[in-house]
Amino acid sequence: MNERTVFFLSDQTGVTAETLGHSLLTQFDGRDFRHVTVPFIDSEDKALEAVRKINDAAGKDTLKPLVFSTLVQPEFRKILKQANGLHLDIFDVFLDPLKEELKQEPTYESGRAHGMSDINAYMKRIEATNFALANDDGGTSRNYEMADVILVGVSRSGKTPTCLYLALQYGVYAANYPLTEEDFESGKLPDFLVQQKRKLYGLSITPERLRQIRKERRSMGKYSSAQQVSYEIREANKLFKRYGIPNVDTTEFSIEEIASQILDSTGVERRVRP
Amino acid sequence: MNERTVFFLSDQTGVTAETLGHSLLTQFDGRDFRHVTVPFIDSEDKALEAVRKINDAAGKDTLKPLVFSTLVQPEFRKILKQANGLHLDIFDVFLDPLKEELKQEPTYESGRAHGMSDINAYMKRIEATNFALANDDGGTSRNYEMADVILVGVSRSGKTPTCLYLALQYGVYAANYPLTEEDFESGKLPDFLVQQKRKLYGLSITPERLRQIRKERRSMGKYSSAQQVSYEIREANKLFKRYGIPNVDTTEFSIEEIASQILDSTGVERRVRP
Repeated sequence: MNERTVFFLSDQTGVTAETLGHSLLTQFDGRDFRHVTVPFIDSEDKALEAVRKINDAAGKDTLKPLVFSTLVQPEFRKILKQANGLHLDIFDVFLDPLKEELKQEPTYESGRAHGMSDINAYMKRIEATNFALANDDGGTSRNYEMADVILVGVSRSGKTPTCLYLALQYGVYAANYPLTEEDFESGKLPDFLVQQKRKLYGLSITPERLRQIRKERRSMGKYSSAQQVSYEIREANKLFKRYGIPNVDTTEFSIEEIASQILDSTGVERRVRP
Repeated sequence: MNERTVFFLSDQTGVTAETLGHSLLTQFDGRDFRHVTVPFIDSEDKALEAVRKINDAAGKDTLKPLVFSTLVQPEFRKILKQANGLHLDIFDVFLDPLKEELKQEPTYESGRAHGMSDINAYMKRIEATNFALANDDGGTSRNYEMADVILVGVSRSGKTPTCLYLALQYGVYAANYPLTEEDFESGKLPDFLVQQKRKLYGLSITPERLRQIRKERRSMGKYSSAQQVSYEIREANKLFKRYGIPNVDTTEFSIEEIASQILDSTGVERRVRP
């Protein structure tokens, strides 16, 4: 038996409903709800099936289900409203004021957000992802002249996931270069990086956090020793300072936050929007 | 001069405001607005700066700005409301009904959605991303016993970006295996895949679309020839049928849609929620 179930309903992927619901629910501490996403509700049958699922949860749980939904078609919204839950629907609330301001009728067609309506956007995201993979970890291809941004930092400071996120979410071309022992010893960055100096962005991190992350990977040895970790971070910060590389401390940040911070402070334009 | 500017305001990354705004705006065809994201509005100064940006756009554009915002702190929301625009704020609308239903005061603390409030979730996403990278393209590591799902399909059917998206967004362990000439000729899958049969999920695609994608990469040669592309897809579909592998036609789908479809039809649980 659950205390309460939260539903995310959509005629599409459910990403918008999930994002909205998550933002709101984080405002209420200490609740542990069961989460159920029901995507692709694009027929009367599927709408009725979702109603059954919600009513089923309402019967079993102690408390009424919460229902975040983003269905555009009025007839399916009407069916879903019959379910026993607290309904929170962005189209219910925001479509009318937008219609009035834009002086235009909504299409009421589903399948547009996150859809293939823009094949061009799809290709851009795929190409950006391939770019990130080919230019990951200072790999041999190094098409740095094509990069929008080049992340530099010590091993496990979050470079790879951030590059992939920038690519998948925004179509941004992000390369990354892991600072090496050689860079630390010489106190210099390699020439091919210096040539792209205006694209460089540093990821810094606290020694404690870096050790924690590295230990998850390899618990023993120099790689995650307190001394090595402190040394690398100190030398990395010196390089950031020497070359005037803007940087962000990723310690308390999620991947979304790091990505958002980079776009905000570099002014790199999103090539696509989710 | 722009017709109109759309602002996405947030005390966090802006992802929620962008997702919400995008879903709503796709309902209105043929509009080409300028998009501006203003993240990390966490002080009075930053709120006032955002107001200046909005009023500036209101002065320059022909039409009033649209303002999608997701700020939790009432004092900053109040400042932003002074800006000249159509304000659409999810906290304004949905926080009260939730408060009433949950019989609990919101924390009004920002920095919880997408935040490091859950380091555990961060680590899960990073580990899942590393898993996807290590098990990409039938690579040598093949930790298939650890995988939640193994995507199979021809080259460029969308396997890699889908695996990375599943990892970054949901912490799902997704491996992928590209079907080879050898698999097609023998009409069989390798043993190490057959052993994981229940985890396999196929990506299919139309020959026209696959040719279009492959041509973007290498415009000439057998790889993107009509004959080769049709042959590979035909043989891949035979393998899906022979082994009873569920599959989705990715032709008209975005990465989010493919990922969502896979989770929905396999029942694989999201390890984290965005």
